[in-house]
Amino acid sequence: MTAPGTLYGLGLGPGDPELITLKALRLLRAAPVVAYPAPTGGASFARSIVSEFLSAGQLELRVDVPMNPDPQFALKAYEVGAAAIAEHLVAGRDVALLCQGDPFFYGSFMYLFGLLASRFRIEVVPGVSSVMAAAAATGVPLVCRDDVMTVVPATLSSDELEKRLESASGIAILKLGRHFSKVRDVLDNLGLLERARYVERASLPEQRMLPVRDVDPASVPYFSMILVHRRQDPWASEET
Amino acid sequence: MTAPGTLYGLGLGPGDPELITLKALRLLRAAPVVAYPAPTGGASFARSIVSEFLSAGQLELRVDVPMNPDPQFALKAYEVGAAAIAEHLVAGRDVALLCQGDPFFYGSFMYLFGLLASRFRIEVVPGVSSVMAAAAATGVPLVCRDDVMTVVPATLSSDELEKRLESASGIAILKLGRHFSKVRDVLDNLGLLERARYVERASLPEQRMLPVRDVDPASVPYFSMILVHRRQDPWASEET
Repeated sequence: MTAPGTLYGLGLGPGDPELITLKALRLLRAAPVVAYPAPTGGASFARSIVSEFLSAGQLELRVDVPMNPDPQFALKAYEVGAAAIAEHLVAGRDVALLCQGDPFFYGSFMYLFGLLASRFRIEVVPGVSSVMAAAAATGVPLVCRDDVMTVVPATLSSDELEKRLESASGIAILKLGRHFSKVRDVLDNLGLLERARYVERASLPEQRMLPVRDVDPASVPYFSMILVHRRQDPWASEET
Repeated sequence: MTAPGTLYGLGLGPGDPELITLKALRLLRAAPVVAYPAPTGGASFARSIVSEFLSAGQLELRVDVPMNPDPQFALKAYEVGAAAIAEHLVAGRDVALLCQGDPFFYGSFMYLFGLLASRFRIEVVPGVSSVMAAAAATGVPLVCRDDVMTVVPATLSSDELEKRLESASGIAILKLGRHFSKVRDVLDNLGLLERARYVERASLPEQRMLPVRDVDPASVPYFSMILVHRRQDPWASEET
């Protein structure tokens, strides 16, 4: 009997192919099977990050995920994907599963992980988060010393957002998209608008940074975020 | 007149040399001057991550930082370091400043950045955070879907910690060291002890993971953290 293969969850970073780690690159190149989720009919962002490193001898396994907001549709799709990945693992082939950013930080990797973790050996390779890439782009620190960092998805309600943000020193608000106006109003209420920085597609050639005030809410993609740091100078005493 | 050099703040990740990015490695190898902070009389952790990639032709600039808890001593040390780095930049030499983890995420890089940013071109290269590396080691997701992630330094008071942690879905508590017992008691009060995972020196050969209950408070180093994820299964509905 063949020993089962290992599933590698490879964190590939925020988008710039140069921001992948040496470890992710080594495991990617060694994997006979490369799997990645992709929106039905669209391209896989994770695959685009490492397309230059893939070789013709590698088998590619695309996991089609419908963009239907009902999670039952996604669950079905991930079950189909998990079964296809499991087949390779059972046959003794290692599978590299591509994940933009970090696999365990809001990654869609978690769905396949949840379906396969009880049956197979899984190794997760951490990656550079888009939060760190966005902070690097703005040139403003996220958190230092005794700061508290809070990361919230923009999908929360205004009340919930306000409650979470009122006491944080460093803030990252992810998954903006159509939630942008709501988030902008919450930041305005909290007096944080002037300190808030908007970053779109951090680390990619299309990267864009704007003061939050100047952003057209109609143009905000999913891959965008707002960063706020209450304390600008690491030597200054706490403001709040 | 020579054009001034660029200061590169290189995020080198949590400790495993394979977790540095292709970009950090390229800029590190190209830099004529490599600077790093180090505790007086001790070795630089950041330098140890990339020691195998340094070459004899590179000038090394060690910034000695006394471990005195009075921040005025550190400020003085960083001012001396910043002046030495500035000399190279003025002479047109690029300087690679080594940073464990990510430069803008609780990094000591921030102090030198604060002293040099107004005078020189600085490029920050984001790195893999120890939080992501610790989560990868435990094999438990940090946050998914609508989760809120909170990162707190263990240096906060019990009351402050309790306030910050009671509503978070994903939690990372950093800089444990001598604050471990306090943090353990707070987690116990919040009913989170059984879900809490302790990770020491994530990604290094000495990495150690334990249930929080089994940790000897006297043995906890600074480079350790506790992770908690309230929701274990990404398909399950919110628990709280």
